[in-house]
Amino acid sequence: MNANLTADRPTFVTHLECSLTGERYAADQLHGLSRAGRPLLVRYDLDAVAATVSRDALAARETDLWRWRELLPVRRTENIVSLGEVETPLVPIARSGGPGVLVKDEGRLPTGSFKARGLVMAVAMARELGVTRIAMPTNGNAGAALAAYATRCGIETIVLCPEDTPEVNVREIALQGARVWRVNGLIDDCGAIVGKGAADGRWFDFSTLKEPYRIEGKKTMGLELAAQFGWELPDAIFYPTGGGTGLIGMWKAFDELERLGWIGSKRPRMYAVQAAGCAPIVKAFEDGVEHAERWEDASTVAAGIRVPRAVGDFLILRAVRESGGRALAVDDGEILRAVDDAARQDGLLLCPEGGATLAAYRQAKADGLVGADERVVLFNCATGLKYPMPPADNWLDRHGTIDFDAL
Amino acid sequence: MNANLTADRPTFVTHLECSLTGERYAADQLHGLSRAGRPLLVRYDLDAVAATVSRDALAARETDLWRWRELLPVRRTENIVSLGEVETPLVPIARSGGPGVLVKDEGRLPTGSFKARGLVMAVAMARELGVTRIAMPTNGNAGAALAAYATRCGIETIVLCPEDTPEVNVREIALQGARVWRVNGLIDDCGAIVGKGAADGRWFDFSTLKEPYRIEGKKTMGLELAAQFGWELPDAIFYPTGGGTGLIGMWKAFDELERLGWIGSKRPRMYAVQAAGCAPIVKAFEDGVEHAERWEDASTVAAGIRVPRAVGDFLILRAVRESGGRALAVDDGEILRAVDDAARQDGLLLCPEGGATLAAYRQAKADGLVGADERVVLFNCATGLKYPMPPADNWLDRHGTIDFDAL
Ligand SMILES: Cc1ncc(COP(=O)(O)O)c(C=O)c1O
Ligand SMILES: Cc1ncc(COP(=O)(O)O)c(C=O)c1O
Repeated sequence: MNANLTADRPTFVTHLECSLTGERYAADQLHGLSRAGRPLLVRYDLDAVAATVSRDALAARETDLWRWRELLPVRRTENIVSLGEVETPLVPIARSGGPGVLVKDEGRLPTGSFKARGLVMAVAMARELGVTRIAMPTNGNAGAALAAYATRCGIETIVLCPEDTPEVNVREIALQGARVWRVNGLIDDCGAIVGKGAADGRWFDFSTLKEPYRIEGKKTMGLELAAQFGWELPDAIFYPTGGGTGLIGMWKAFDELERLGWIGSKRPRMYAVQAAGCAPIVKAFEDGVEHAERWEDASTVAAGIRVPRAVGDFLILRAVRESGGRALAVDDGEILRAVDDAARQDGLLLCPEGGATLAAYRQAKADGLVGADERVVLFNCATGLKYPMPPADNWLDRHGTIDFDAL
Repeated sequence: MNANLTADRPTFVTHLECSLTGERYAADQLHGLSRAGRPLLVRYDLDAVAATVSRDALAARETDLWRWRELLPVRRTENIVSLGEVETPLVPIARSGGPGVLVKDEGRLPTGSFKARGLVMAVAMARELGVTRIAMPTNGNAGAALAAYATRCGIETIVLCPEDTPEVNVREIALQGARVWRVNGLIDDCGAIVGKGAADGRWFDFSTLKEPYRIEGKKTMGLELAAQFGWELPDAIFYPTGGGTGLIGMWKAFDELERLGWIGSKRPRMYAVQAAGCAPIVKAFEDGVEHAERWEDASTVAAGIRVPRAVGDFLILRAVRESGGRALAVDDGEILRAVDDAARQDGLLLCPEGGATLAAYRQAKADGLVGADERVVLFNCATGLKYPMPPADNWLDRHGTIDFDAL
């Protein structure tokens, strides 16, 4: 029915490349990090892509993520796995944000978060490359997406998450067929256990950026934005940054689009948003260094961005700096206030990480970093329904006398 | 950006009509039920629509709900309210369902349920007709959608729900700016209080089918299905039936599409699915009567279809019978088993009401009512994330010795 899922896919991957040293790696083989211990990036023959398809042809396709097939790594149609990766809408929040502010509402994706973009691609590639057992450390959403897609194509999964991961996520992961464990630590503690098992050959390590294809899936956020904005990008993007895959992926997307001649050289200013209680990238940005130190005693209500150490730190910082953007920290009180305002004023329920981008935008506007008339995109990376909301306790006795004036 | 939200809309509404007696009512005026106490249906000049737009022109538009503007009641573009009403995907569930079984995943809509379709339209029309205060009885999802859209355009809302409405829903409604009350009773008890306040002129009554426009919004499920199936409908549709707006709306959509010449006369068999603990429509279907009696002591895990009495009962029964379908009851055990199977086998998390349709489909297949090779659509009307899931309690001590074989 959806031709994107059934069309033959000429693919254009030429090789993979170390993001630090540029060393080349062969395509069509299973890879983790590069020999330098850094993420691998997938490279395409973009001239051939440009000769094969036009941006108008793409715009005419069904709008889900698989429309971008010439810029994606999956070679064989039968390896596609899908739960309906719809194009996510841009929702204006004129009151709580301002006239030019749009929320990219990623909660509409399968399993309720943008992690579906990365994991649908990584799982399809794992299938293509014959992986049968995967393990992953997660703050919740990535594990849910992994469980759903891996289950769908019969790959076994082991998921480790910090003990205070939102309850909904843990249950969702289990119900979708993964074996899930709570660990007394943070996401990098979980990652250490996953890494050890992978070194022993027990499973394939699916940690953020430790396999090359999640970033290709996340890249579709940038491709989609370009198409939605009529092949002109917004002025600024606010992205809640944990591991940073999405930000790195969008930056890669913009680069590929320019090489294709589909967009010009103008780039949005990229704002990496973190919580004040866990802001390693902000610290590195302010210190003017290329790599971030581990953040000790990380703590924030926005679980998805509680990532003390990111293996792609230098890629995040590079994109932010090249774009003329910044790394910004907001505290939990501002995050919760932003969530509350967007819901009460614009009827849009954000997740805390989405609230962080609104809080950061407000701060940036107050500081004169963004103009009130600029076109700004805030990423709401998951549905707000997964997160705790304040209780609402009004009771009415239908057998008693109802005071209608009080309703 | 999305032309559907900004295009001028020639509208084609001619009048409204009592669904029981056919009596005519003027368009562009505020109406509740007809004088006969029955739902009003909106009528269009379909010849003029056919002369104005082709199905191919429609297919080329952005795919959200507002693409159908010539078949919708809103006359003035500035009254549109929107939170991004995306086209919902059809997700195959080959293992837990079968090869021809597709789930229409309505949890992707704003506020996580298909109630957004009806309420976005009803709220836009309330705005167009000058309503400033709305009250509604709800099992949860409809109230959440009402709160979001009404808040977004500054209309005041009072929402009453049964005391055991899922906690997420109640909180969501409050956070999105409505005043919400829990009542010790069922949805029709809440409805009685809303009705009394409306009679006293305190607010406008937004109960299911008591205002004419929710059905127009729900109609888009049928329009969307027709477009997604290439203007040929599936063989059977399983719909979890409470008030029945969606089923009635789809039936109306198919009728309008045939009059437009966009589809032929073939109709899907419509299966109205209810829970064994609250099955008034099933009883009326089996008794061969036109109206259903109130179901006493209604009880089921599928809160959305716990509706003891439906004002549109005869419309549901008429559509089911004309289509050659049936009304089917499934018990809570089967519902929960279906939810579990879809998640564990296909990675798709259904809501209990969605689980009910899968359970009913299985039963219908076993009984020979549907063939294994037929093209079947099951409606999953809300995201499964809003509902309780079984706990998952595995703990791992990172300071201890980890037994990797046990992971
Ligand atoms: C809701 C949410 N927002 C933001 C993030 C951070 O994403 P990234 O790892 O791409 O920086 C996550 C990651 O878990 C998340 O779940
Ligand atoms: C998830 C879900 N499914 C089904 C229904 C029933 O819908 P209808 O009133 O159109 O029959 C509801 C209504 O609340 C619902 O929330």
